[in-house]
Amino acid sequence: MSAALQKTRVLTGITTTGTPHLGNYVGAIKPAIAASQDPSVQSYYFLADLHALIKCQDPKRVQASRLEIAATWLALGLDTDNAIFYRQSDIPEIPELTWMLSCVCAKGLMNRAHAYKAAVAENETAGNQDPDKGITMGLFGYPVLMAADILMFNANKVPVGRDQIQHIEMARDMGGRFNHLYKGQFFTLPEAVVDDDVAVLNGLDGRKMSKSYNNTIPLFVSEKKLLKLVRKIKTNSLEPGEPKDPEGCTLFQIYSAFASRDEREAMRREYENGIGWGEVKNRLFEHLDAQLREPRERYQALMEDPGHIESVLLKGAERARAEAAPLMDKLRQTVGLGRFA
Amino acid sequence: MSAALQKTRVLTGITTTGTPHLGNYVGAIKPAIAASQDPSVQSYYFLADLHALIKCQDPKRVQASRLEIAATWLALGLDTDNAIFYRQSDIPEIPELTWMLSCVCAKGLMNRAHAYKAAVAENETAGNQDPDKGITMGLFGYPVLMAADILMFNANKVPVGRDQIQHIEMARDMGGRFNHLYKGQFFTLPEAVVDDDVAVLNGLDGRKMSKSYNNTIPLFVSEKKLLKLVRKIKTNSLEPGEPKDPEGCTLFQIYSAFASRDEREAMRREYENGIGWGEVKNRLFEHLDAQLREPRERYQALMEDPGHIESVLLKGAERARAEAAPLMDKLRQTVGLGRFA
Repeated sequence: MSAALQKTRVLTGITTTGTPHLGNYVGAIKPAIAASQDPSVQSYYFLADLHALIKCQDPKRVQASRLEIAATWLALGLDTDNAIFYRQSDIPEIPELTWMLSCVCAKGLMNRAHAYKAAVAENETAGNQDPDKGITMGLFGYPVLMAADILMFNANKVPVGRDQIQHIEMARDMGGRFNHLYKGQFFTLPEAVVDDDVAVLNGLDGRKMSKSYNNTIPLFVSEKKLLKLVRKIKTNSLEPGEPKDPEGCTLFQIYSAFASRDEREAMRREYENGIGWGEVKNRLFEHLDAQLREPRERYQALMEDPGHIESVLLKGAERARAEAAPLMDKLRQTVGLGRFA
Repeated sequence: MSAALQKTRVLTGITTTGTPHLGNYVGAIKPAIAASQDPSVQSYYFLADLHALIKCQDPKRVQASRLEIAATWLALGLDTDNAIFYRQSDIPEIPELTWMLSCVCAKGLMNRAHAYKAAVAENETAGNQDPDKGITMGLFGYPVLMAADILMFNANKVPVGRDQIQHIEMARDMGGRFNHLYKGQFFTLPEAVVDDDVAVLNGLDGRKMSKSYNNTIPLFVSEKKLLKLVRKIKTNSLEPGEPKDPEGCTLFQIYSAFASRDEREAMRREYENGIGWGEVKNRLFEHLDAQLREPRERYQALMEDPGHIESVLLKGAERARAEAAPLMDKLRQTVGLGRFA
């Protein structure tokens, strides 16, 4: 077994329907890029663009999001010599494996998937006669695609939120069932890695920052736009001079996520001393802008050179397929779809 | 539009879990090969080996069946310069298109598919608590794969049995939905062609010849084995000399399927004149053997040269992919999964 194979394989999919915002950066992108620098780990990052088709039938949005996300990760320093960074749609072995796994995956397993059950519950609440109204086969079956994403690269660990643990268990189920039916160790069974300390940022309105609440601060907007958005963040109506509570304050929370311990404690004292909200906003803007300026410049340069991003992703796809293609050859042999000579 | 595109495109999938028998030949293979010689038609024949995985988890069976079926069609004179003859599993664009179609296919459509409903009904009859017991996602979702098979090559016509009409309607539904959502004529909507005069042969026991009844006469067995099987065909107990009714007689039915009109009428008179069953069986054997000898020799030569079959199929796959790959490129662009530069 080569040294590369002995490394722990960590796989992360990135959904490609939105524009990366500060919450994505703090909660997911920053820790993932840091983790990818661990020499004991072989990281796989992919743009989950086949998954994007489930929710988004707006081609321009899907295409723009893929480009923005790729540029974001590269601008923030993802080391693509170390990590394997690719687009899911560049790996034709993935839909092929999806079909093979479909043939060993019980339909009952999908009946119990959270996303599907939530959609059915929504239909029931809305009084729809058909519990499956508006539900596509893509939505119903995507845990099989996700299992193929993971099993294709024999990932050992998949960092996920709590709501995603079930999908990893499903991937284990399909991988284990295939191994059993075809009598071999074809697939590594992945483990979910749940970090309960994931930083969550609030958005402009004080709720969790999320595309669906339309309350986000995109990561790489212009200085002017960034200032404008920071100024829109909701605060209470305490006047300058009145002491303020940093706990539960969105401004303090975002500042903290980008600050050192010392900077955070200094700001906490400013709150106690009655700093005004306008001043906090100026300081937050300056702090964010100072930290984001360099990657923003890299991001803008990358967005102006999509050909470069394309070549980086194609190189990643080549590395990914160098693993996927021989495994698929083996799997085809295994199920009876091998060459005749 | 090129002349090739103006031809009517007729697509036929061949399931690859069994060994071709006389019933397959008379009912499906012979008319299909004849139809493929129509110069106004561009025929597509494919070994539906991804579908085989739904029902058969015995790799040796799947592999053997693919080889036997390919050898059978070639031995019987399929003109592979004219018809495009390929293995489904050699076309990676098909599972990829399957995923795209999944994202526009209502789950409710699959809920109503005959094969799925039959499996559920069987569970209910057996008193199983779980109506989906033993049903895989492959069985549940295979009409989507079948739609991809058909839409991938913009087939105009798909010859099917009555039980398959629903699948063609589903393919129309998915193709039409995709065309509508993405505002273009990406897919030709296929038509089912149902031939109600399909010749049906009875098997050894007098029921319809079918793998599932274990009553078949394989097409290319040795002379000795063929004679043995013909002798096993069930008859009534009328003695030689007693007039016999050719209607409903399996021997007469099989003989007729391989005989000219004159030969059939001559045999009918023999029945009236009281020919003995042993003699009918000898005549049937001789008649079958005379007709099958040449293709059987070609079949055996082909089975001994799997490398040749492989090369024929790879050439077919190349021709099929020459159509599938540009269409998939266009579809990727259409849904937002195009290249960045």
